[in-house]
Amino acid sequence: MSPIRLAIVGLGKIARDQHIPAIAKTDGIELVAIASRHGGLDGLPWFTDIESLLAEGPAIDAVALCTPPQVRRQQAAVALAAGKQVLLEKPPGATVSELLPLIQAAKNGSQTLFATWHSRFSPAVKPARAFLAEHGVRRVEIEWKEDVRVWHPGQAWIWEPGGLGVFDPGINALSILTDILPAPVFLTRAELAFPANRDAPIAADLAFSDSSGFPVNAAFDFRQTGPQTWDIRVETDAGQLVLGKGGATLSLDGKALIGEPEAEYPNIYKRFVELIAARESDVDLTPLQHVADAFLLGRRTTVEDFED
Amino acid sequence: MSPIRLAIVGLGKIARDQHIPAIAKTDGIELVAIASRHGGLDGLPWFTDIESLLAEGPAIDAVALCTPPQVRRQQAAVALAAGKQVLLEKPPGATVSELLPLIQAAKNGSQTLFATWHSRFSPAVKPARAFLAEHGVRRVEIEWKEDVRVWHPGQAWIWEPGGLGVFDPGINALSILTDILPAPVFLTRAELAFPANRDAPIAADLAFSDSSGFPVNAAFDFRQTGPQTWDIRVETDAGQLVLGKGGATLSLDGKALIGEPEAEYPNIYKRFVELIAARESDVDLTPLQHVADAFLLGRRTTVEDFED
Repeated sequence: MSPIRLAIVGLGKIARDQHIPAIAKTDGIELVAIASRHGGLDGLPWFTDIESLLAEGPAIDAVALCTPPQVRRQQAAVALAAGKQVLLEKPPGATVSELLPLIQAAKNGSQTLFATWHSRFSPAVKPARAFLAEHGVRRVEIEWKEDVRVWHPGQAWIWEPGGLGVFDPGINALSILTDILPAPVFLTRAELAFPANRDAPIAADLAFSDSSGFPVNAAFDFRQTGPQTWDIRVETDAGQLVLGKGGATLSLDGKALIGEPEAEYPNIYKRFVELIAARESDVDLTPLQHVADAFLLGRRTTVEDFED
Repeated sequence: MSPIRLAIVGLGKIARDQHIPAIAKTDGIELVAIASRHGGLDGLPWFTDIESLLAEGPAIDAVALCTPPQVRRQQAAVALAAGKQVLLEKPPGATVSELLPLIQAAKNGSQTLFATWHSRFSPAVKPARAFLAEHGVRRVEIEWKEDVRVWHPGQAWIWEPGGLGVFDPGINALSILTDILPAPVFLTRAELAFPANRDAPIAADLAFSDSSGFPVNAAFDFRQTGPQTWDIRVETDAGQLVLGKGGATLSLDGKALIGEPEAEYPNIYKRFVELIAARESDVDLTPLQHVADAFLLGRRTTVEDFED
């Protein structure tokens, strides 16, 4: 079978850092064009937007939408209407409801819509899920603290409505949490700290529970300098399970359980190729639902201005 | 068949104004107890909370939860676990995610969980839905403006996180909108005005669209004095359809289409009795999803303090 001809839409930091190297490593898919306001890539046809790509570009089978979430629904709708397979960076959209017509359109056309959660492809996730299926959970503590100036330099969209602020990394933790726990959780309390000059939170404290009542606490912070923290600690009846470094490491009572190298984006593209072959979609909105719930139920506080 | 023995939980304004008279008018169901912090009703057993009602009260089959949304999930979980049928006032909960385990619990027990949207039982809704199934929609304008001091006097919970502020009435408009339109809509823009001293919005401007692109604009305001406005105007290819007075009236190009009297709550209890007989649930979370999306995507502005 000839490889899937893919175009990247939105050539920003995540596309350059992760998507392009991952596509190059993946059998069955090749990058054939770029659509981006910010310029193209040496040796590939380049278009400023998805409409000109589709009208004037080389034949393609699929698009990977790496644009900010606020513009992605419209691009996904255009791509699906043109019969293309669609991969969405996370978060999959700016609202939960806007995804529902896209899911329906993909279903009607037997096309693939893949809402990716890259952290779910980190090496700790599958073994953690298997462990928690066998052992009772007593409590979960999530600490997800990073320096926004390092990871999102100059990304104005992240501070706009729909850009999610600190939930842009925090949703990665929620995507892992909702994948490894055996039962659904729901938010019970949230505090969101908004810089006085910004439209998105810079920090959040969240409390979740499940029907059996065990607590899940999460602290997200964009103001971390020095060492960065992306840890999920699960107290179980068989010891403390720790997913460290965003799911790159896994330990039980301090003893390492895995030694696999991190391969999130190569695994994403492997899965995309499989989904296209099977004419299936994979869209789980649970992490975005929890973020919407946090904005809905959250008490807001105002903190000092943030300047990039 | 002997009537369903019902207890009201939360004897506030809506229970006294609407539920009690509606239950009295409905065949097949009777009010047998009250659980409420604020006192009971002459001639009926009274308990301060649902736990004591279930432990010490008369035998009951069902509960109607008329408490504020922030405490309702826990009460619904307790009632379902005790094998009772459950009716939820609107909004059905403080988050979308917290409803999912309740839906599952009702399903597992073949019990009825009924998330009511009283405005959907207003006389204009069914004929409007039938009309819009036959005629193209070009544009929708919603104006939902009322005086919070008249309709929610002293209700502190409405200004707390999870109390929804102006979305408490506004969600009624969204429950009608999502019931009469032939295709799903999604939010594209929102502005939410928060009083400086409150944790919930006092006004909101919303824009929605559907996949075909027609606009839906909604203006919600809690600061309306004088005449109150609860109107939905739909421009169609066959004229202007207006649902007035919260769905109590319906007209096409100014000509009245219906003359039925308003009977929202009696219709709610009729439906509850039918659902219980059929061992079915009816939980549509779409209106609450739109509100969560509005908080997620909405740009916040701060307006002057609100004092009750």
